[in-house]
Amino acid sequence: MSYPRSPLAPDVFPSLPAVSGVSLATVAAGIRKRGRDDLLIAHMAPGSAVAATLTSSACPAAPIEWCRKTLEEGDGSAEALVCNSGNANAFTGKSGMVSTEKMAEGVSSLLGVSPRKVMVASTGVIGEPMPDDRIAEGIRRAGSGLVASGPDSWEAAAGAIRTTDTFSKAAWVGVAGTRANIVGIAKGSGMIAPDMATMLGFLFTDLAVSPSILQASLARAVSTTFNRITVDSDTSTNDAVLLFATGQSGDEPIADGSDPRLESFQEALDEVCLSLAKQIVRDGEGATKLVSVTAAGAVSEHSALKIARSIAESPLVKTALAAEDANWGRIVMAVGKAGEPADRDQLAIWIGPELVASAGRAAEGYSEAAASAHLKGDEVNIRVDVGVGEHEATMWTCDLTHGYIEINAGYRT
Amino acid sequence: MSYPRSPLAPDVFPSLPAVSGVSLATVAAGIRKRGRDDLLIAHMAPGSAVAATLTSSACPAAPIEWCRKTLEEGDGSAEALVCNSGNANAFTGKSGMVSTEKMAEGVSSLLGVSPRKVMVASTGVIGEPMPDDRIAEGIRRAGSGLVASGPDSWEAAAGAIRTTDTFSKAAWVGVAGTRANIVGIAKGSGMIAPDMATMLGFLFTDLAVSPSILQASLARAVSTTFNRITVDSDTSTNDAVLLFATGQSGDEPIADGSDPRLESFQEALDEVCLSLAKQIVRDGEGATKLVSVTAAGAVSEHSALKIARSIAESPLVKTALAAEDANWGRIVMAVGKAGEPADRDQLAIWIGPELVASAGRAAEGYSEAAASAHLKGDEVNIRVDVGVGEHEATMWTCDLTHGYIEINAGYRT
Repeated sequence: MSYPRSPLAPDVFPSLPAVSGVSLATVAAGIRKRGRDDLLIAHMAPGSAVAATLTSSACPAAPIEWCRKTLEEGDGSAEALVCNSGNANAFTGKSGMVSTEKMAEGVSSLLGVSPRKVMVASTGVIGEPMPDDRIAEGIRRAGSGLVASGPDSWEAAAGAIRTTDTFSKAAWVGVAGTRANIVGIAKGSGMIAPDMATMLGFLFTDLAVSPSILQASLARAVSTTFNRITVDSDTSTNDAVLLFATGQSGDEPIADGSDPRLESFQEALDEVCLSLAKQIVRDGEGATKLVSVTAAGAVSEHSALKIARSIAESPLVKTALAAEDANWGRIVMAVGKAGEPADRDQLAIWIGPELVASAGRAAEGYSEAAASAHLKGDEVNIRVDVGVGEHEATMWTCDLTHGYIEINAGYRT
Repeated sequence: MSYPRSPLAPDVFPSLPAVSGVSLATVAAGIRKRGRDDLLIAHMAPGSAVAATLTSSACPAAPIEWCRKTLEEGDGSAEALVCNSGNANAFTGKSGMVSTEKMAEGVSSLLGVSPRKVMVASTGVIGEPMPDDRIAEGIRRAGSGLVASGPDSWEAAAGAIRTTDTFSKAAWVGVAGTRANIVGIAKGSGMIAPDMATMLGFLFTDLAVSPSILQASLARAVSTTFNRITVDSDTSTNDAVLLFATGQSGDEPIADGSDPRLESFQEALDEVCLSLAKQIVRDGEGATKLVSVTAAGAVSEHSALKIARSIAESPLVKTALAAEDANWGRIVMAVGKAGEPADRDQLAIWIGPELVASAGRAAEGYSEAAASAHLKGDEVNIRVDVGVGEHEATMWTCDLTHGYIEINAGYRT
């Protein structure tokens, strides 16, 4: 199956800079379809630091368990990443871990690094055994293709991790006050495309950052970006975001939480993650609109987030957006079902710039035409104020269309 | 807008028996459309007991607040119910409560009962002011139409509370060992039909049951029936289930929790509630299949319910069911995202009678053809065993089809 490029896709793939100390190779290993790159190997300079956020699923795939275990037992460094698309190695029983170990060992032999320094990720069909031999052969062949990271190799890398994504996703930002860059690639269209489990994000910087600081920075960035997007509220068995820091930019290492450059590093990391997260929503299955939902006036940020999520995940709100219908009654419903503190008689709702409801009822002089005009755009902003506090939070989502049903109600075979 | 009758609708409306002490009237008050009954009044014998379960929404509609307040401050008895369709009286600011009070006062004058003995319910559009004058006039006209409950008046009552429901919903059961019946009517198609807030259930029995026992029985029945259904996971501002007990059957009152007849009363009540709850799912927007999801082997009933709900609410599972696709990978995903204790490597999944996965992988000798054959039917059963305990729970839902998008992405106007 392949689907037309999302109407919300960017016009061109960005031109990504080199990240010193990162080499890349991609090959067509025949895991899913012939003639399409489906295996990525990234080789990082010795001593590179690693950080990760992994799926909260109670039934994680084998590579997630591998990464979790090696990170827990390791010293915070990693020197390689291997990722296949086409098979998620999820729900493959105990043989799944054997397949993952084989991937790590194959890369270990190829690059001469310890298997425990190899991060593994898989994305694709759930419940099918991994084609171990084809993957091993692909890893062997990748050795001759390793090249320094740069515009072409990044584009190939972003392509090799795609499953049903309709476009390749990438972003980069320079870290102010340093010679370093952060480059990220990602995949995911819907939390899970049809049978294609997974949101994956791989981030690389040539700044030197100690593992504990790197982990804290990544956790903070993910919490306000990748964890603030929802396409269909489903969570995959394979979701993972990995960040590697090679320390090859020539800057002094960041080894101390009070380092003033940490702020610009966090800003750059947040920006790359937010760009990638929004690109995933832009490729949401059947999406025709990128929607931001902000809940303000809540008693805490956590409460604001629950309210924003309730709106962003409501099928009734999302179908109304697809129809460009300024149906704020459904937004009220979604605020109500969040179960968080809210003052019904102070509730205010904006659709784009238009205040459509205030003081718990339709706003005086509200123009449905103005709200509808905003809804006709590709990007829609919804804001609610629940009138009980000072905190706010934003989620990003897309509309729910026939395209979603079309894609997800298709047969696997 | 009107939609074709659900393919899952029962062939005929059931022939419902009289409930002694209940009179009914319906009128076309012109609240929503001309020429269609949209107002129901039920008059119960003096001293009738009442029990209620009301929406957990943090932004409830005015009639919900009215019922909650009068029940809290009252003595557990009620003598009338008034329900309009066409306008939910939700998010109507402070004037919403004034409208609700007018409805209670109108019925109070008509029937000569205290306004505090009048339960009020509304269902329909959110955020529009109530047409108070038309409702008051409708209530006045209803006076001459009051007739004893019986097959025809029950059918009219079930019709008058419909909004976008494609069929009228009702069920009845005799209470074993007594002369009493329980009759219920309900409305709801999707948790919220397009702009039509609300699931409503009204239950009537002529058994005499003390208010506290009645409330406990209703809470117990609702917890395993109305609270176990989901169409789109949305919760309305107006959801309410009310149970009235007139005590006119001639049986001795049940005033003691150890009364042996309480067991048969509970069984009958559970049966009526389950029938109504399933009828609501059968009228789920765009539904083509009634789906039961049972999670077994969980550490507690609460945990089992969370897992069953996660599966039943997953858009990816529901679209696969619409496609009659035995896609158990999505079921694994939904078990995982529930976040409840589960042993991935003991997980077993049945689609109908067919064991499709066991011990954390595709089952040996599993027949996709057999699973697909089951999925072609109108009624689908999914069972998972998560392998960590002895508890189980069941949810009922429907599939997610183009029909859902069609109905919900329609314009309001």
